[in-house]
Amino acid sequence: MDFVSRVAELSSTHGPLCVGIDPSAESLAGWGLADSADGALEMGRVILSALAGRVGIVKPQIGYFERFGAAGYAAVESLIHEARSAGLLVIADAKRGDIGSTMESYASAWLEAGPLQCDAMTVSPYPGFEALEPAFRAAEHARGAVFVLCATSNPDAPTVQAARTDGVSVSALIARRARERSRNTQSVGVVVGATRSLESSGLTDGDLDGLLVLSPGFGAQGAALSDLATIFGAAAPRVIPTVSRSVLGAGPAAVGAAIDNHLRELGL
Amino acid sequence: MDFVSRVAELSSTHGPLCVGIDPSAESLAGWGLADSADGALEMGRVILSALAGRVGIVKPQIGYFERFGAAGYAAVESLIHEARSAGLLVIADAKRGDIGSTMESYASAWLEAGPLQCDAMTVSPYPGFEALEPAFRAAEHARGAVFVLCATSNPDAPTVQAARTDGVSVSALIARRARERSRNTQSVGVVVGATRSLESSGLTDGDLDGLLVLSPGFGAQGAALSDLATIFGAAAPRVIPTVSRSVLGAGPAAVGAAIDNHLRELGL
Repeated sequence: MDFVSRVAELSSTHGPLCVGIDPSAESLAGWGLADSADGALEMGRVILSALAGRVGIVKPQIGYFERFGAAGYAAVESLIHEARSAGLLVIADAKRGDIGSTMESYASAWLEAGPLQCDAMTVSPYPGFEALEPAFRAAEHARGAVFVLCATSNPDAPTVQAARTDGVSVSALIARRARERSRNTQSVGVVVGATRSLESSGLTDGDLDGLLVLSPGFGAQGAALSDLATIFGAAAPRVIPTVSRSVLGAGPAAVGAAIDNHLRELGL
Repeated sequence: MDFVSRVAELSSTHGPLCVGIDPSAESLAGWGLADSADGALEMGRVILSALAGRVGIVKPQIGYFERFGAAGYAAVESLIHEARSAGLLVIADAKRGDIGSTMESYASAWLEAGPLQCDAMTVSPYPGFEALEPAFRAAEHARGAVFVLCATSNPDAPTVQAARTDGVSVSALIARRARERSRNTQSVGVVVGATRSLESSGLTDGDLDGLLVLSPGFGAQGAALSDLATIFGAAAPRVIPTVSRSVLGAGPAAVGAAIDNHLRELGL
């Protein structure tokens, strides 16, 4: 079954929510865990336990593991394996982007059989959309998905994303290219932050027509899950909203309850 | 001593050449090494031995290590440590780019004390220039450097890099922001590919005035080191040209000779 179908199947029982695993120094301290690979592994396992029966998609943020070097990678390898074994879809939030055989290597790392294999990864298109092709091909082969960074919500996002070619913003161009590329395989989606309106990101809901959209920015970062339809309009049914800090901030004993609150905000 | 001064000091004895460590599946096979973390470590050690007394700067391409997961990271940790212990400057070619505390984590991983600490890293500005600020601050603190991806040489580079804001291309805007940011500390440089002319990348040598420039694309990728001054004009004295495939392609017994050939092309 391909990624889109698996998301649809999981959504029919759990809704579309995705929960992040973000073992930052701050969140580990808040949980009374060591700021180490072991602490990150422990936090990840508590989150995975709380997801069982509640949520179908999980997103480890790779930067928080990389700061521990090889030990951090061993931790995220374990979490990826445990999550997939439990039937969860795993999206590696890695935002990799390079050209040629380097891009092939990143795609191989996160999408092909191996210690870090996930169901999907995020990529960054500064080198150009076509440069990401090795990841699209790897995703097709594995029946996984690639989410291309399209519009972020940070104040300086327009430096690059609002620049224009023939009147079309970079963010809209990336969405259009993703739509073209995904027409046959649906293995290509986009990342669009939720705390900025589509309009102020240079997008319309039509630009996202037919695309899976991974959307961070809900919960502690400011956007309300109950506003998902308002923010994304016609694209809302294909949005995978992600929450991280609001769930981690609840503390280890209340992760499940925090997720339940978010599911209620989604009307589930 | 800060990064620019160290580059200047190393250049006065060795010239500005930087050699890549790119253990791709293809290059490992060419060397008769296993396509594994051990093979990558072995290849890296042979390259480091050949650099001694010849070259002062080395650039591991992180994607080629990441495909081996934690074992690959253990290999690159060892190589970084061995290279820095031998007095080499190490640039992590990681092209990380994200926002907020995730960017802080990537900066921490590659620039702060820890198993992966290097002298410099490459970053990707799709999320905006300001989003990279945690890396600039970490580089200042460590007296290292950050090279911001500016202009790549692949055919589809213009999708993003040639888009314009008030008539200024994204690539020129990134160079300008880097110049502003580096004015006080010189800890910020840019990555500009050598196989496309500055003009066709939307840049002039003036846009690179005062900036350190890390430039891949020499050797097997097509640009001649003897043309460095022609390609970069007034910016040439601050360019760190990198070679990888032409050195690896020579095979393990001829790495030193291949480097010597490149040094001659630079007139050294």
